[in-house]
Amino acid sequence: MKISVIGLGYVGLPLAIEFSKSYETIGFDINQLRVQQLIKNNDINGDVETSSLLDSKVVFTSSIEDIVESDIYIVTTPTPIDEDNNPDLTILKKACETVGSVLKKNDIVIFESTVYPGTTEEVCVPILESHSGLNFINEENKNSINDDGFYCGYSPERINPGDKEHYLTNIVKITSGSTEEIAKKIDNLYKSIVQAGTYRAESIMVAEAAKIIENTQRDVNIALVNELSIIFNKLGIDTKQVLRAAETKWNFNRYDPGLVGGHCIGVDPYYLAYKSIKMDYYPEMILSGRKINDGMPQIIIDRIIEMINQQGKQMKNLNTLIMGLSFKKDCKDLRNSKVFNLAKILNSKKSKVDIYDPFINQDEVNEDNIFSLVEEPRSKYYDVIIIAVDHSVFATMSINEIRSYGTDDLLILDLKSIFPIHQTDFRL
Amino acid sequence: MKISVIGLGYVGLPLAIEFSKSYETIGFDINQLRVQQLIKNNDINGDVETSSLLDSKVVFTSSIEDIVESDIYIVTTPTPIDEDNNPDLTILKKACETVGSVLKKNDIVIFESTVYPGTTEEVCVPILESHSGLNFINEENKNSINDDGFYCGYSPERINPGDKEHYLTNIVKITSGSTEEIAKKIDNLYKSIVQAGTYRAESIMVAEAAKIIENTQRDVNIALVNELSIIFNKLGIDTKQVLRAAETKWNFNRYDPGLVGGHCIGVDPYYLAYKSIKMDYYPEMILSGRKINDGMPQIIIDRIIEMINQQGKQMKNLNTLIMGLSFKKDCKDLRNSKVFNLAKILNSKKSKVDIYDPFINQDEVNEDNIFSLVEEPRSKYYDVIIIAVDHSVFATMSINEIRSYGTDDLLILDLKSIFPIHQTDFRL
Repeated sequence: MKISVIGLGYVGLPLAIEFSKSYETIGFDINQLRVQQLIKNNDINGDVETSSLLDSKVVFTSSIEDIVESDIYIVTTPTPIDEDNNPDLTILKKACETVGSVLKKNDIVIFESTVYPGTTEEVCVPILESHSGLNFINEENKNSINDDGFYCGYSPERINPGDKEHYLTNIVKITSGSTEEIAKKIDNLYKSIVQAGTYRAESIMVAEAAKIIENTQRDVNIALVNELSIIFNKLGIDTKQVLRAAETKWNFNRYDPGLVGGHCIGVDPYYLAYKSIKMDYYPEMILSGRKINDGMPQIIIDRIIEMINQQGKQMKNLNTLIMGLSFKKDCKDLRNSKVFNLAKILNSKKSKVDIYDPFINQDEVNEDNIFSLVEEPRSKYYDVIIIAVDHSVFATMSINEIRSYGTDDLLILDLKSIFPIHQTDFRL
Repeated sequence: MKISVIGLGYVGLPLAIEFSKSYETIGFDINQLRVQQLIKNNDINGDVETSSLLDSKVVFTSSIEDIVESDIYIVTTPTPIDEDNNPDLTILKKACETVGSVLKKNDIVIFESTVYPGTTEEVCVPILESHSGLNFINEENKNSINDDGFYCGYSPERINPGDKEHYLTNIVKITSGSTEEIAKKIDNLYKSIVQAGTYRAESIMVAEAAKIIENTQRDVNIALVNELSIIFNKLGIDTKQVLRAAETKWNFNRYDPGLVGGHCIGVDPYYLAYKSIKMDYYPEMILSGRKINDGMPQIIIDRIIEMINQQGKQMKNLNTLIMGLSFKKDCKDLRNSKVFNLAKILNSKKSKVDIYDPFINQDEVNEDNIFSLVEEPRSKYYDVIIIAVDHSVFATMSINEIRSYGTDDLLILDLKSIFPIHQTDFRL
């Protein structure tokens, strides 16, 4: 059995490496630079250790010819949103064209990308059919088609980038397939590499829906605690204190307020909302959650305005420092980081913005001078410091060190509550 | 130390019994019938075993004179909402008047009722002060008042009626007090009866807020799965199958769709929303959740209309049976049960409604003939059966037995998914 993994990001790369331990495995990506780096055992994202790459038997390639012989194609390409927050399936569709062009009878195409329920069968299958000239085989038509076609499956990725506790082989993997028999085959395939085991969903659509609601639940719950933090701020009580107390109840679930960025939690709910609206139902909970989470940068700026006005200062020419630019702790991923929105709003108010994030290189950032990425914060300079991301390097700094960057009436906003409450001036 | 528990419902009764094991304890309720029953060791709500009542040393009374000598007053009266979903604090205020009328220097008044943050100090304290003529002592004024007054505390009840796994003594109890010293005293008091231990919150308001967000989080999460069930119904996939798959992820939290009634989950969020709106913030997540959960009866009826129209039937004169009337499984509590709303909507469409609930007696129901409470469902009679509550007696019935109540083209709606998916015609 020969497997081709299409897309070598944080999902495809570890998957290809794991499969290569038991199967002949090709890792395909259209990004030639990425492929060259991987051939040289270098994962610039830091998701995979160099040693794993050195040991790996994956054949990395950008050539379609190299994937022609495969029996199984696993598509792990990203599924972002466009500027209107609608699903952007361009890359996924392109991957389907590529796979469709090499597809043979009895091949199986498995999708791992996060999509709205129905995408595999409504969007991907027609492209695979038209580019391969073959029929898609499912439970309903399998007897009439008589094996003269290809099969599909869906097995959502559950990789949590940067999480050392949960990774591919110790997270239960949902599987599904277009026929009963192929579903079992796909399930066995993943079972052979995932020690935590698999969960065979009843259908491809059930598997698609299961994945999309995981991050939707998370987004809605973070939106709720963000809303609570807005209310509690008005009431003059500390959200963290309230949450820590509530968490002593056996069925209270822990979520913390904060900015919601990244390519998953802030994106996936829009996929489900898109499909829901297509089906004529406006998903109030899901979109209320998105609205609140996307609105948090403005809430934070409003609070800053209130606080500096009390000091008799104005936003114009205010010197601000934001600590942390990536969307997540100890990670260099900038996708959809809401820190950009914070900086944009500050910039629109003519405040000056320095950003300090040891994870980020100057050349990765290109935002038309709305901020300066500084290698070191300036000394005795800032009116306001926003600690936006809870990078470990920030948490181990002393509050006095951070205070030394500021003027005498410096205000510190500790959005992730990494310091004790009385050491800073505001937290969510 | 002498303790008076004010209000002998599902919160006050077990609390009084537990305290009476270590302290002289008075159980006070204005409902004389209730007090008479308790004196005869009979808890008609079934929350407390007769044996516990027989063993108990609580002095049950409706006479204010009996509570005069107490050092500690614990108020456990209900806090419902009015017809406009606003907090109805009438009973709580009345309890404060009663306690205020007997309050002495250095007494402590502890509230367990669920309230919006600020209620104890903004609503209860002024009543206690005016009726006692004493000052309220808190951390700020304690030195100036010089012990010439009373103290308050807040320790939210976390009783889950009907839950045999979680009860007073094995649930961590949040405590708080109006001064540091009294907070410690209150904490020690509860620690002496709660084996699971206590959690001392930073302030009364933090403790109030912690309680109100517990049920708010639950309500919002049930609203989310209810919304998902609306979407998945349109997509033709089963919500339960999707949820069971998603739950295989380590950080997915289990909630099931359904009607949200009762005196807690459907009520508490309105308390927080009320206070939030007073503070000039419209709580979108919280009220979206309430809107969806309160709208579920209509969603279910819409689905019935769709299904019977496909059968060529009309709502007028449709014979319907609802199985279950209480707001919760294996419980006789009818408060805010949304099954009444189901019956009302059916009635407004001229459908005939029988309700079958072995937990409920005819004389407890008084709803102007919008339905008949039947002792046994009729045979071969119903066009539609709605299984609304997952009472164990229903779950152990065979689907054929339930089917025998219906006509040949009977439709069964299994709202709590107690039967396998293909045995019924609809589930949430």
